[in-house]
Amino acid sequence: MNVTVRGRTRHCRTVTFDRARNAVRLVEQRLLPHEFKIVAARDFRETAAAIRDMVVRGAPAIAATAAYGLAQGALDFRGRSLEKFSRHVGTVYQALKAARPTAVDPVNAMNVVRAAMRPGKTVEERQALALAAAEEFADEDVRHCAAIGQHGVKLIRNGMRILTHCNAGWLACVDIGTATAPLYAAQARGKTFHVFCDETRPRSQGATLTAWELAQQKVSHQVIADNAAGHLMQRGEIDLIIVGSDRTLGRTGEVTNKIGTYTKAVLAKRHGIPFYVAIPLSTIDWNLESGFDIPIEERDTSEVLGAWGLLNFKSQISNLKSARRAYVRVANASSGARNPGFDVTPPELITGIITPAGIFKPKELWAERDRLGFRV
Amino acid sequence: MNVTVRGRTRHCRTVTFDRARNAVRLVEQRLLPHEFKIVAARDFRETAAAIRDMVVRGAPAIAATAAYGLAQGALDFRGRSLEKFSRHVGTVYQALKAARPTAVDPVNAMNVVRAAMRPGKTVEERQALALAAAEEFADEDVRHCAAIGQHGVKLIRNGMRILTHCNAGWLACVDIGTATAPLYAAQARGKTFHVFCDETRPRSQGATLTAWELAQQKVSHQVIADNAAGHLMQRGEIDLIIVGSDRTLGRTGEVTNKIGTYTKAVLAKRHGIPFYVAIPLSTIDWNLESGFDIPIEERDTSEVLGAWGLLNFKSQISNLKSARRAYVRVANASSGARNPGFDVTPPELITGIITPAGIFKPKELWAERDRLGFRV
Repeated sequence: MNVTVRGRTRHCRTVTFDRARNAVRLVEQRLLPHEFKIVAARDFRETAAAIRDMVVRGAPAIAATAAYGLAQGALDFRGRSLEKFSRHVGTVYQALKAARPTAVDPVNAMNVVRAAMRPGKTVEERQALALAAAEEFADEDVRHCAAIGQHGVKLIRNGMRILTHCNAGWLACVDIGTATAPLYAAQARGKTFHVFCDETRPRSQGATLTAWELAQQKVSHQVIADNAAGHLMQRGEIDLIIVGSDRTLGRTGEVTNKIGTYTKAVLAKRHGIPFYVAIPLSTIDWNLESGFDIPIEERDTSEVLGAWGLLNFKSQISNLKSARRAYVRVANASSGARNPGFDVTPPELITGIITPAGIFKPKELWAERDRLGFRV
Repeated sequence: MNVTVRGRTRHCRTVTFDRARNAVRLVEQRLLPHEFKIVAARDFRETAAAIRDMVVRGAPAIAATAAYGLAQGALDFRGRSLEKFSRHVGTVYQALKAARPTAVDPVNAMNVVRAAMRPGKTVEERQALALAAAEEFADEDVRHCAAIGQHGVKLIRNGMRILTHCNAGWLACVDIGTATAPLYAAQARGKTFHVFCDETRPRSQGATLTAWELAQQKVSHQVIADNAAGHLMQRGEIDLIIVGSDRTLGRTGEVTNKIGTYTKAVLAKRHGIPFYVAIPLSTIDWNLESGFDIPIEERDTSEVLGAWGLLNFKSQISNLKSARRAYVRVANASSGARNPGFDVTPPELITGIITPAGIFKPKELWAERDRLGFRV
């Protein structure tokens, strides 16, 4: 999507490949929203480090990064021996896989690239096939997000006030995003609407990443405390809710997403407000049979007990040089915390699931599995 | 309640009167939870400034402070003329009233003190009556909170996990608190239980004040993000909810409290978890006929867009000298916010209202108005 730096606006993807330098170029997301910077990972080890250190985050974005990283590693090989080349590619694969050991998306993405290069009869051919497959993987992600936008845009009417939670935007994908895709599509069609971004404690991805995205894209928006959404719904100030998902169960229609999503769905049900979940096909888990089988990560308590932000904030991005990122301890010093990272929303609270293949009721996913990329 | 400073534990009230120095002594709440300090307001103007600058906050606490402040001002008068004395007391009254112009509790408290001194036949007699009335006002607040505890303690069974929101603790009263009163009473009876403190963004009174209170009192507790309560309820990890109230409508049973309270009540209803509101009688508004008539204050957006905390936090209170309080901007620089400070919970979501006179259904308040200090 669009990024404006020093008055110049340009289009930008979260991850791209620089063929001339054999480098993976990434938006350095750890600096956002306070600073925008593109960094280059110049070999597959740097790409793995960027995934590990969360320069790039979001399942679709790290999947595309791993796909490019595998191609990058393959292209770095010098020699003609297919056997040595395969061993080298195996090393690259393992390094990228180990960068985020619990994530499945990078592995799936690399498997696509590896399968694509197999028909190549020489090292050179396989290298070319690997890069083409990685580019196609990234392009497909963009097409799928665009398709989510085209289906979801029908839900947005002029004047609507739309709530979103956490960041399921273009920063989490290659471009466009999932929960944000209908918003950007509506904007492109000239519709007027306003977005409330839940700040999404404890990591504040709504206040930082989603608010930054919407500001860059000039979408009307405001940040709210997670506590405020219920009050706004009660006063009739929210018309539609769209969130993303980290894992959606194809068999049951249950949706795992950032902690707090379930609460918003319960409130939406009470107030009769449509609650939609936007997902790429890779988010659907076709195996699990119950949401209670989804492990809920307990994260570091420091996230709840304090906050990261910009110190000496002067309200102008030009003052950044005199400011620095800092952690402040908010809570009482001797108190501990619980910090579950995700929650599970049951299907009866979800109006529809917006996919690249159309909008479905949660319970319809299983019947539609052939159109939705069913795999076990 | 108890406070431990440098290993020494002592009992402490939020506000007390020092007769020898004619000073109002206050817990300096703006330093909490990072530092505990008692400050002395040495004349009525300093007392008014302490109310205005929020050294002391919470309706019952500022009411008692204003009562003491009026007595303090009266005691400062030198002379025998009852007429001049009355004029002086009027000046004191206006100064204390102007310190928090929208608060009704300090005015009600001062009216009690002023009425009590009227029978005095000399300046000296009236001064003595004023101080006695202020002391009685503070003592009555403590007795009422204790009574809330004695009624509410019956709700707490061994092993319960109890959620609370914001701070309706002793720091907001003279002692004991309202929502915390049943907890402290249960502890005194040797019951075991665990408290989850909603951090209560954007001002984080749960993470700061309530967590500090519970830690000082050695009550088992953890801070959670406001987003996490729904997940914990869904997993069966919360058995009881007790919150305070800023204004409860005697005619309808609607409860105004810190933003986010309504959300917790909606979640509690879905999960069949008892949801109680603990209030002193002064919180009941007998006039308003609808919760929609309650003005909801929109507060400064900086609260939502950032956080106050301790910089260079080393997890030991002894390192405080090298740390300092600081504000960090969390959100995107060019984004704005909405910041409603309160919300209204309808009576059908409330299991009971715990008052000094007993526990009532919200709809019973009006029928029981004579026992509940009805006044218009």
